[in-house]
Amino acid sequence: MDYRIERDTLGEVKVPKDRYWGAQTERSRNNFKIGTETMPIEVIRAFAILKRGAAIVNEKLGKLPKEKKDAIVHVCDEIIEGKLDEHFPLVVWQTGSGTQSNMNVNEVISFKGNEYLEENGFESLKIHPNDDVNMGQSSNDTFPTAMHIAGVIAIKNKLLPAIDLLTETLDKKSKQFENLVKIGRTHLQDATPLTLGQEISGWVHMLRKSRKMIVEAMDNLRDLAIGGTAVGTGINTDPQFGQLVADEISKQTNESFRSSENKFHALTSHDEIVHAHGALKALAADLMKIANDVRWLASGPRCGIGEITIPANEPGSSIMPGKVNPTQSEALTMVAVQVMGNDAAIGFAASQGNFELNVFKPVIIYNFLQSIRLLSDSIISFNDRCAVGIEANKEVIDKYVQDSLMLVTALNPHIGYENAAKIAKLAYEKRLTLKEAAVQLNLLSAEEFDRIVQPEKMV
Amino acid sequence: MDYRIERDTLGEVKVPKDRYWGAQTERSRNNFKIGTETMPIEVIRAFAILKRGAAIVNEKLGKLPKEKKDAIVHVCDEIIEGKLDEHFPLVVWQTGSGTQSNMNVNEVISFKGNEYLEENGFESLKIHPNDDVNMGQSSNDTFPTAMHIAGVIAIKNKLLPAIDLLTETLDKKSKQFENLVKIGRTHLQDATPLTLGQEISGWVHMLRKSRKMIVEAMDNLRDLAIGGTAVGTGINTDPQFGQLVADEISKQTNESFRSSENKFHALTSHDEIVHAHGALKALAADLMKIANDVRWLASGPRCGIGEITIPANEPGSSIMPGKVNPTQSEALTMVAVQVMGNDAAIGFAASQGNFELNVFKPVIIYNFLQSIRLLSDSIISFNDRCAVGIEANKEVIDKYVQDSLMLVTALNPHIGYENAAKIAKLAYEKRLTLKEAAVQLNLLSAEEFDRIVQPEKMV
Amino acid sequence: MDYRIERDTLGEVKVPKDRYWGAQTERSRNNFKIGTETMPIEVIRAFAILKRGAAIVNEKLGKLPKEKKDAIVHVCDEIIEGKLDEHFPLVVWQTGSGTQSNMNVNEVISFKGNEYLEENGFESLKIHPNDDVNMGQSSNDTFPTAMHIAGVIAIKNKLLPAIDLLTETLDKKSKQFENLVKIGRTHLQDATPLTLGQEISGWVHMLRKSRKMIVEAMDNLRDLAIGGTAVGTGINTDPQFGQLVADEISKQTNESFRSSENKFHALTSHDEIVHAHGALKALAADLMKIANDVRWLASGPRCGIGEITIPANEPGSSIMPGKVNPTQSEALTMVAVQVMGNDAAIGFAASQGNFELNVFKPVIIYNFLQSIRLLSDSIISFNDRCAVGIEANKEVIDKYVQDSLMLVTALNPHIGYENAAKIAKLAYEKRLTLKEAAVQLNLLSAEEFDRIVQPEKMV
Amino acid sequence: MDYRIERDTLGEVKVPKDRYWGAQTERSRNNFKIGTETMPIEVIRAFAILKRGAAIVNEKLGKLPKEKKDAIVHVCDEIIEGKLDEHFPLVVWQTGSGTQSNMNVNEVISFKGNEYLEENGFESLKIHPNDDVNMGQSSNDTFPTAMHIAGVIAIKNKLLPAIDLLTETLDKKSKQFENLVKIGRTHLQDATPLTLGQEISGWVHMLRKSRKMIVEAMDNLRDLAIGGTAVGTGINTDPQFGQLVADEISKQTNESFRSSENKFHALTSHDEIVHAHGALKALAADLMKIANDVRWLASGPRCGIGEITIPANEPGSSIMPGKVNPTQSEALTMVAVQVMGNDAAIGFAASQGNFELNVFKPVIIYNFLQSIRLLSDSIISFNDRCAVGIEANKEVIDKYVQDSLMLVTALNPHIGYENAAKIAKLAYEKRLTLKEAAVQLNLLSAEEFDRIVQPEKMV
Repeated sequence: MDYRIERDTLGEVKVPKDRYWGAQTERSRNNFKIGTETMPIEVIRAFAILKRGAAIVNEKLGKLPKEKKDAIVHVCDEIIEGKLDEHFPLVVWQTGSGTQSNMNVNEVISFKGNEYLEENGFESLKIHPNDDVNMGQSSNDTFPTAMHIAGVIAIKNKLLPAIDLLTETLDKKSKQFENLVKIGRTHLQDATPLTLGQEISGWVHMLRKSRKMIVEAMDNLRDLAIGGTAVGTGINTDPQFGQLVADEISKQTNESFRSSENKFHALTSHDEIVHAHGALKALAADLMKIANDVRWLASGPRCGIGEITIPANEPGSSIMPGKVNPTQSEALTMVAVQVMGNDAAIGFAASQGNFELNVFKPVIIYNFLQSIRLLSDSIISFNDRCAVGIEANKEVIDKYVQDSLMLVTALNPHIGYENAAKIAKLAYEKRLTLKEAAVQLNLLSAEEFDRIVQPEKMV
Repeated sequence: MDYRIERDTLGEVKVPKDRYWGAQTERSRNNFKIGTETMPIEVIRAFAILKRGAAIVNEKLGKLPKEKKDAIVHVCDEIIEGKLDEHFPLVVWQTGSGTQSNMNVNEVISFKGNEYLEENGFESLKIHPNDDVNMGQSSNDTFPTAMHIAGVIAIKNKLLPAIDLLTETLDKKSKQFENLVKIGRTHLQDATPLTLGQEISGWVHMLRKSRKMIVEAMDNLRDLAIGGTAVGTGINTDPQFGQLVADEISKQTNESFRSSENKFHALTSHDEIVHAHGALKALAADLMKIANDVRWLASGPRCGIGEITIPANEPGSSIMPGKVNPTQSEALTMVAVQVMGNDAAIGFAASQGNFELNVFKPVIIYNFLQSIRLLSDSIISFNDRCAVGIEANKEVIDKYVQDSLMLVTALNPHIGYENAAKIAKLAYEKRLTLKEAAVQLNLLSAEEFDRIVQPEKMV
Repeated sequence: MDYRIERDTLGEVKVPKDRYWGAQTERSRNNFKIGTETMPIEVIRAFAILKRGAAIVNEKLGKLPKEKKDAIVHVCDEIIEGKLDEHFPLVVWQTGSGTQSNMNVNEVISFKGNEYLEENGFESLKIHPNDDVNMGQSSNDTFPTAMHIAGVIAIKNKLLPAIDLLTETLDKKSKQFENLVKIGRTHLQDATPLTLGQEISGWVHMLRKSRKMIVEAMDNLRDLAIGGTAVGTGINTDPQFGQLVADEISKQTNESFRSSENKFHALTSHDEIVHAHGALKALAADLMKIANDVRWLASGPRCGIGEITIPANEPGSSIMPGKVNPTQSEALTMVAVQVMGNDAAIGFAASQGNFELNVFKPVIIYNFLQSIRLLSDSIISFNDRCAVGIEANKEVIDKYVQDSLMLVTALNPHIGYENAAKIAKLAYEKRLTLKEAAVQLNLLSAEEFDRIVQPEKMV
Repeated sequence: MDYRIERDTLGEVKVPKDRYWGAQTERSRNNFKIGTETMPIEVIRAFAILKRGAAIVNEKLGKLPKEKKDAIVHVCDEIIEGKLDEHFPLVVWQTGSGTQSNMNVNEVISFKGNEYLEENGFESLKIHPNDDVNMGQSSNDTFPTAMHIAGVIAIKNKLLPAIDLLTETLDKKSKQFENLVKIGRTHLQDATPLTLGQEISGWVHMLRKSRKMIVEAMDNLRDLAIGGTAVGTGINTDPQFGQLVADEISKQTNESFRSSENKFHALTSHDEIVHAHGALKALAADLMKIANDVRWLASGPRCGIGEITIPANEPGSSIMPGKVNPTQSEALTMVAVQVMGNDAAIGFAASQGNFELNVFKPVIIYNFLQSIRLLSDSIISFNDRCAVGIEANKEVIDKYVQDSLMLVTALNPHIGYENAAKIAKLAYEKRLTLKEAAVQLNLLSAEEFDRIVQPEKMV
């Protein structure tokens, strides 16, 4: 392979000729051959948003020549558009401050920026990765800033639309079945009836509640560390820098961001991410419940509950011909499990800060963004290939309602809990209908029974 | 032991004569001899608040005679005051709906309520645990209602005051040391300086941020399931019942509670508790960080960092005489670990609902309340026996600042990152001061160095 | 309350007159008012076993007078028999080395030992908690030793017998139903048949496999830290001390214990407990699966799967008369969830050692022993009140087998997977039996079908 | 893009022309657009090992023509050698039985196998993915078989060698420093001395102990599900099939594998993986401890503990020139955190089986193999770029030993714990040496003190 020579404060390094990164990125590539998980591209793009804003502010503050600013902005735009993705090869399992990914971004911007300057006739100017691209910044404030930007954007652009899509689908289903009376089940045992629409409305409300909690928690991610530099004091940067960059980022992303009130907190605590991921975990718990309900209600086709049908998307078995399985539910529940695991990793990592820095940042944001990506994708998949196709199996539903013993509950206000219990027990033991049992026990006449026990009035 | 005979729909049961519970409680005592963890008393008292409100509303709705209402209210007040604690013996590991604890409350109220009626000349009236105390209710809506009431009260009365106490102490310390310049540390390595007050301000902000997130998350617990009865449809209860009882509870507790918008959600999802415990986990992560900082800063006395001293509360070692250990930090970090474990249990449990009910309610609320109790108690203990006594070891702090190589960072804007790095490396290798190295490398004169590198201007 | 004055190296302390503990215990009581969880009594008793062995060895080594040894042994026996439980009041959330519980044991033994000496005419001798009871020991080696002793004893005496009990019950059930053909279910969808006995044999094998893994993992707990004293070097103790005490403990407990090969490891790593709890988690996962199967198979009675019946132990609902719920399954699954949470706490805590000590010992052993206790108790409860009463609902089981479409799998070797799939699909769509569909498609004659598709030959 | 038409029992599907997979793989690609995590290649290769063995056995049993067997073996060998990696595109988040990855393997083998048959003049023979490649198998037994094979191979080929490498390095370091006396630290506070070699020997023993536990736990993975087919009964396969295939796999892999005793267990329980991952978690906890010790001992260079130095691999800071950070420790601790999260996911997933199958298999094996890969890689990285370069900073180490107050412990057997404590306290308060304090208190002469207190005799 062809190489060029790059250097940093530790000396010279060979870098593949067709790559735009520099010495420090290459060192990291060689020093951390760990796993296959590269730094999420969302973080890289958030970095570009930040570096772009920083360059604009540094020019405004009179510290960076306009030409350099223009060049930096130009390269950042390319990164944001995804044109340079292959030049960010570093893995998650690197230094815990993400310094090397910050330098990767600085190096690519300076390399490509210098090309841009040359192309535009400013070959005398040289953009330095530290002195120019990283001006007024440190990995310690830029990396957590990029974490928050990436988190907010991923939630807004991926997760919330996915939740809304499924919410709408289920809300339609809820209305479609709002009058279809079915048996309720608690403890997996037959209970009093409700409509299928009501049952589904519970799922809808789960999504709405989780969404609300995610949005509330996300607001805390709008506080940015930028301006704190190395340890939170803001050494080597203008006191206004943090706020000005936050404003610039807000403008560019069309999302509101703020300069964090306390930069010592911002570099070393990740309580906001722990909290926000707690909201993702609440969503995961709800999704697990919804997906489980769907597959149990669709269980069968002949030896299960079978109250609903769901689409058959693929052959279900390599040995049992004709089998169809609730595979979208399975993917969704596996994702829910993964989010629970990610939550454990994030909480642990966030607790391990020391003094002025928490050095578990890459593992935190890796897990956070994986959760968002998996939740978003699996919700959409579940929506498109399962939820939209849910249909009621009315015949089965009706039969269960007729058979159930828990309609007896309607008698409580008329004959008391204990007499009602006698009816249910007799019906169960002698395999009678409730009405037959009620009459046999002389507790009610058949007419009285019919008047009181009407499933459609119990919902 | 002396017994009396009680009965329920399954038949007769012997109950210890001096206990106020009835047949179903006794059955549960015998059927679930599992562990030593009894249902948290906070849940029992929340149940009493709820039963009290329900009786008042049922009387208003014309369903419960005033005399019975008065008797129920009387007993509930005794439970709330803690007079009957010993009559709630059931363990956490019972039915997953908490039905047996609901019945335990119903039975004690009816037993003692009937005594009260007799004493007041209404011996002809009999309060029935199901038909009267549980009127218009089900375990399925009362238990989650009691969970939320208990959660809100515990956070308000225990946790928030504890957080406030420590916040105030640390805020005072932060101000006390606002001008004491010390070395910063990132990656455990010497970094640029800050003041001890700034370092502590980061801890203060952690507490404030966590508190804010807890308060926001707690708001979701104000939605109550009451009114949903067996499966969420509100069978056997007045449509207004949920809202009226929520109002009554708000009045009594002086906290705002609401009737949940969707009762199907309220019985089967615990997303609000998952989310609220996520906020507790964020606090735990922050406390772990603070407690670790304190013990590392106090490490020594002669072979550690030793920048601060903390109170010596007890002999530290059974074998090493004169040893004093950071025991309050240790208790606090153990609590943080426990909260992380509890969080895993809660998330898992909350995901396991089926159809109209989640039957992991007792394990969820047990873990939630344990977290609140342990966090509150350990924060107060840490405050009173450690934080208030933190003192700076100025001599040590000053020495580190003088020795540190990272003051070199102040030179970046003057001579560039790479030249500054040369100075730091030379100083490190030859054991020089930075000034000596700077002069030796001809990068700055001694005067220039002194003018630029002033730790007190770097913070 | 009446007090007496006790003293330690920090000065005087008032201790309740009727309590046998001393100054350091009392300090801890006052300094750690955190939660309600006291140090598990299993740890205290393990400490007594250890202190007893240490006194015997110290006498043999000529360091402790026989009279003192006798007195110490006498008190230890009382502790082991449970006669002094109320004198160990300290909470889990104390110093992370458990020093204060070690001192609590030392103090109670010296106090009661001195009484014993007086009663036996040796009032001139005084047992000192540190110099005599703690002779040749440190909290840092005694506490982890007590953790391991307590763990092994709890597993042997509580958990393994519980597992064996349920294994035997289920093995009987497996044999009872070994020829009862039922439908299989994979992905909750109808699959090829098996016998109920085979299905239950899977549960039996889960218990056997988990048991085997627990026993293997437990072996690592037989390595004891004793002999390492303060930091692992064995300062102030005889080089033989560790091995001799391990032998003495083995003799007394009738269990094999060894002196750990590397005491530096023994004080600061808890990898053996993490690993052993991993085996408990495997058991918990299996129990969750078994308990879930039981409650799903028993779901109904009329609107669920209903293939088995389980005992009705209590009224299931406070509002639905006659309802019976799978409450033992619910308790067991809640315990499984708790064990998962405990596992998270233990792993985290075990990772937090620094230098010569891990100071998360109390929280580790608290969670470990809670898991053992809850698993043991809930398994016995599930066995006695549910598993022994499992009965097959043959009528339902037979009906499902007749209806199922997955019997078609038996045709694969005869007509190929794709033709078999056609039969299943036609039968499903037109609501035919498989035989009808096979004949209609001209793939098999009715006679051929009957010869090949025999559920009892498919198991 | 160019397509060809493939079909399965649900109909026709377009497949990219240059890809070897078939209809079901393509359906899965379209139906599960979730995340970026593809099925670990280790699972695919394990599948090839299994399919190879199955073909050989099926030929022996007279069910598969020799030509087809040869073709299948040929393709499997190519998969095992990694020549066909790009033809396995499916993601983890698919059906929970892994059916689609089983079919992916079946389809690629049949496609390439048919090519092979053609090339060798057997164009009249057609290998069918289900009837031939999957002969006598089901996804339900093949996927868990592949999980176990992949797990054993990854542990043997990747993890154990990595552990051995680091063990050897640290063992050498332990011997190198076996006589270098340094201060011990417990509770982060100065304690009695030990040698640096002893301290490191604790790390060595952690690795050895964890390794032993991993090897023991791995043995349980040698039980294979193969032979159970659809639900564990072994329908459509020869009763000997499981054992014969296990033998064939053993022969091919040079590892011992067994046919699982109970196939119902093997399809639905993953207790062995939970247990084995518990051993990985124990290793992760130990690694976290070791990596933390290394970075704390290397903290400084001037304001930390600074007892050791570690290699400087890269510039540590984008803002602080000359800063060097313990980045290998940071990567290793982040991996440890990830393993803890993975452990939570695996335990949860393993508990969610129902009836004859657990449908969380892909998420389980994804996390299991990620843990192995990350642990292996990060251990090697830590070894090569950090551990081999650990050097002692003798000057610092000596100074701490001289200063420490905990040498006083050596006096316990001579003057008792309480007098020794007096000396330590006086020395601390008046900033004396221990000897000065001892003499001043008239407890020992200077000569006696020097005779007793010799750090090199305390280790």
